[in-house]
Amino acid sequence: MAENRLIYLPLGGAGEIGMNCYVYGYGPVDDERFILVDVGVTFPNMDTTPGVNLIMADMSWIIERADRLEAIFITHAHEDHIGAIGLMHGKLQAPIYCRPFTAAIARLKMEDAGADENVVHEIGPTPEVVECGPFKVYFLPVAHSIPEASGLIIDTPAGRVVHTGDFKLDVEPLVGDPYDEALWGEVAKDGIQALVCDSTNVFSSAPGRSESMLCANITDLIKSAPKMVVATTFASNVARLKTLAQAGVDAGRSVVVLGRSMQRMLANAHGTGVLTDFPPTVALEDAGDIPRENLMLLVTGSQGERRAASAQLANGKYLGFTVKEGDMFLFSSKTIPGNEVGVANIINKYSALGVDVVEDEDGSYHVSGHANRPDLQTIHRLMKPKMLIPMHGEHRHLRAHAGLATEAGIASTVVPNGTMVDLTGDAPVVRQLIEAGRTYLDGDMLIGALDGVILERIKMALNGRVVVAIIFDEDDEPLGGVWVETTGLPRARTDKTLAELMEEGVEIQIARAGAKTLLSDELLERVIVQAVRKIARDLIGKKPTVEVLINRLVPA
Amino acid sequence: MAENRLIYLPLGGAGEIGMNCYVYGYGPVDDERFILVDVGVTFPNMDTTPGVNLIMADMSWIIERADRLEAIFITHAHEDHIGAIGLMHGKLQAPIYCRPFTAAIARLKMEDAGADENVVHEIGPTPEVVECGPFKVYFLPVAHSIPEASGLIIDTPAGRVVHTGDFKLDVEPLVGDPYDEALWGEVAKDGIQALVCDSTNVFSSAPGRSESMLCANITDLIKSAPKMVVATTFASNVARLKTLAQAGVDAGRSVVVLGRSMQRMLANAHGTGVLTDFPPTVALEDAGDIPRENLMLLVTGSQGERRAASAQLANGKYLGFTVKEGDMFLFSSKTIPGNEVGVANIINKYSALGVDVVEDEDGSYHVSGHANRPDLQTIHRLMKPKMLIPMHGEHRHLRAHAGLATEAGIASTVVPNGTMVDLTGDAPVVRQLIEAGRTYLDGDMLIGALDGVILERIKMALNGRVVVAIIFDEDDEPLGGVWVETTGLPRARTDKTLAELMEEGVEIQIARAGAKTLLSDELLERVIVQAVRKIARDLIGKKPTVEVLINRLVPA
Repeated sequence: MAENRLIYLPLGGAGEIGMNCYVYGYGPVDDERFILVDVGVTFPNMDTTPGVNLIMADMSWIIERADRLEAIFITHAHEDHIGAIGLMHGKLQAPIYCRPFTAAIARLKMEDAGADENVVHEIGPTPEVVECGPFKVYFLPVAHSIPEASGLIIDTPAGRVVHTGDFKLDVEPLVGDPYDEALWGEVAKDGIQALVCDSTNVFSSAPGRSESMLCANITDLIKSAPKMVVATTFASNVARLKTLAQAGVDAGRSVVVLGRSMQRMLANAHGTGVLTDFPPTVALEDAGDIPRENLMLLVTGSQGERRAASAQLANGKYLGFTVKEGDMFLFSSKTIPGNEVGVANIINKYSALGVDVVEDEDGSYHVSGHANRPDLQTIHRLMKPKMLIPMHGEHRHLRAHAGLATEAGIASTVVPNGTMVDLTGDAPVVRQLIEAGRTYLDGDMLIGALDGVILERIKMALNGRVVVAIIFDEDDEPLGGVWVETTGLPRARTDKTLAELMEEGVEIQIARAGAKTLLSDELLERVIVQAVRKIARDLIGKKPTVEVLINRLVPA
Repeated sequence: MAENRLIYLPLGGAGEIGMNCYVYGYGPVDDERFILVDVGVTFPNMDTTPGVNLIMADMSWIIERADRLEAIFITHAHEDHIGAIGLMHGKLQAPIYCRPFTAAIARLKMEDAGADENVVHEIGPTPEVVECGPFKVYFLPVAHSIPEASGLIIDTPAGRVVHTGDFKLDVEPLVGDPYDEALWGEVAKDGIQALVCDSTNVFSSAPGRSESMLCANITDLIKSAPKMVVATTFASNVARLKTLAQAGVDAGRSVVVLGRSMQRMLANAHGTGVLTDFPPTVALEDAGDIPRENLMLLVTGSQGERRAASAQLANGKYLGFTVKEGDMFLFSSKTIPGNEVGVANIINKYSALGVDVVEDEDGSYHVSGHANRPDLQTIHRLMKPKMLIPMHGEHRHLRAHAGLATEAGIASTVVPNGTMVDLTGDAPVVRQLIEAGRTYLDGDMLIGALDGVILERIKMALNGRVVVAIIFDEDDEPLGGVWVETTGLPRARTDKTLAELMEEGVEIQIARAGAKTLLSDELLERVIVQAVRKIARDLIGKKPTVEVLINRLVPA
């Protein structure tokens, strides 16, 4: 009988922060049984993915082996862990397991995608277990910036794997599960074959701080505010919403929750029982009667999102509220790399309105949801894994985390997306490299990152575009001249439009062209493209993309 | 005789960091004589300006009054102060005054633009003076991150204005002029009517640090490096290049300057005499014989620029050099907001190559070129201006700086781009608001930010594009069917292409259309656009921009 092996294959999340998607397998080579951990998304940008709605890992490798996929586990309800479950489940099938708060979000995702919600199964924390094929999987409660975040304890015939998911060591997270050292120690007591560990904050050299130390600071800040206070954070950070609301109430303010997604998250947290004693808030319709200096608004848009409440308030009005000279706006959040300019735009708009914007400079008003370097070292020491696989990070984070483990005498290696490693022995061994790409949701369609569709858009955006249409009659004579349409190109320094000049130029080329060229669409297109490009280069200094429509009327 | 007034009108730089362009005027209302301070650029991005080469202030207000423009002054040779001088001088005319290092760069800009270099006049620091119309202008040497940076002392019949330009309070900048408190005091001793002051670092709460404290730190760092060291900073930061080279030599390394723009800046600094005793460097052709562990490369690309040396090395090779496992790459620079993702991409590439990347986390390897908040307060106290105008910053910086001055009892107000303020009295008074826009260099053409050209590109990039061509014969019968071309759109879930499906859809609409529609290009276009949009929405969920080419063969 063939030898069994335990393998780990990240499809996403090991090369970026976001888009988490990890495969574990156990069994004979090429006949392993699989589980999938997290089916997350990451977000598009104009530089590389204009017009794209969502980005997820290319899951074709596991989709092609879906018949061997036993189950899907979602560690927590952040978009970069759960965002693609609705879109991709149709191709993956397999039952989905998560804790109740996460399950509620997962069902919404399935509903949005028109998929069957009944494949989502709720499961409690360890010792509750999911037995699937060769795997026994337990949810390990961890503290993070969303309720019921969990690591996974994955028992296999080759030993125990602990997949941390996103986590921090917070003994007082206010909402969700505190860090329980005794429980982690218990999990590790019979030995850990592999610790697959969050790397996000490996470059943060100070120990992480607790959510519980924020409320007093924020209360003092709000007390110092002469007028209305507006505060933003991630909608899913229910603990922070509670902290902010409590600080507002402690400062004698009436608190109004404005963001729609915030209200949904709070409802979900109440409904699933993870949130209790949330401070009293005021309904939107009653807020009008309250003096502004007694009001505190909780709004969405901590990342400068264009449509969020924070942006709409900055542009003047949102749900009847306007910000005014002397109001305060608090970012109780960290700006995610790539969002700096968007956030700065909002801050400048508030500045122009006379609003005092408070950012979290020295950590007084925000704490991270991820374990910092000393916290990671604490976990390394506590769990004493045979090997450590750095997970969830850009390459630089993974590399730094692997270095940290190696220093501590733990076998470790960087395992980027698409790298299949064998966890069976005493150290991770790379067995195979697979094509690890990205899949885009564009409109309603799923397209590959390399399909060329997006590249076409980027080229049009950088260079502008010209379309040339020409018709030949039954005798292969040009019919009614050449028609040119330009888009995204400046005018030339002439009375005529660029299109008119190109029409003339192309007509000259056609008049000059010999029969051989005129009869060959390929040759003719080349001549026309050259002519158009030359005119664009000479007159405006641009190199537009050129499309030629040649139409030949066939004899009836 | 009409009353004279002293006015200040920022066209750029007061609403962003970059694109500096400031007008000063003195004389009767609407008959003032003007000087222009700085003609800078800012840089495009995919989000708002895809394909644009450069962005500068819309200078039409001063161009329309060029006959009253006495002179142009360039404070220093950074692109955001000098970048547009070659492109715009043809419309401004007026002589250009700057110090020798800046003049050398200005002449290059004029040359690149095919403009006359002879309008660039070199002038020394105060007491040398430029007398132009009602103005007497002196160059006030300041410390910054480029040689011969200067403030301007602008004497007018209404009193003395000090325009700081970019500056920091560094008594030991290594290259260029140290901060000279006595000189600043001397300048202020008879009273300052208005201090127009750099606001870039108003949010930095610690006093600025000197260039001179870096060399030892960097030397220690290089000594700790087992293999080759590569360091990057701004090419124009000649002092930093000297610091890095000195640190390399002190650490026993042979230093090679790789970046072309770095070599040009160093040559310029030597040629104009501002740079002396630069440490010995090794010529590229001799570097091959030197063991890697004894080498230090100075390269361009501190902001992650795609074509710079740092990026090319990260991609494998540059001028025969390759980085390897165990090499060190030092960013002796700050990442400018908006460049974070580009810089992270390069760091991750180095990480994948096994290179240890050192960023300036705690200021050990970089100091800013701008005055921090306490330094600004020092200057406020020293100069005791009647009024302070915050300059060079986003709105949030200007607002914070104005607040700082007001606290110190100095009359101050935020003066954003396009705001004309009267500096004649005891406090700044807003007199007029003018349209303050941006001008883009796109290819060889200058276009307005609101011309719609760029908006067309952004729409194509977000939504994709469809072109429909249709011909009607002399009898207004459709000739040879409908031709559709799609760009940047995904395939539909069918065997046929999206274009084929759209051709069919449009043909059906045309067959259905009545004579009235068929004879009206306008009505017909509306019908076709609707049909194409519906197909795109139904089949792929996108809303492409649609262009319709209707061509009618007129009877011969």
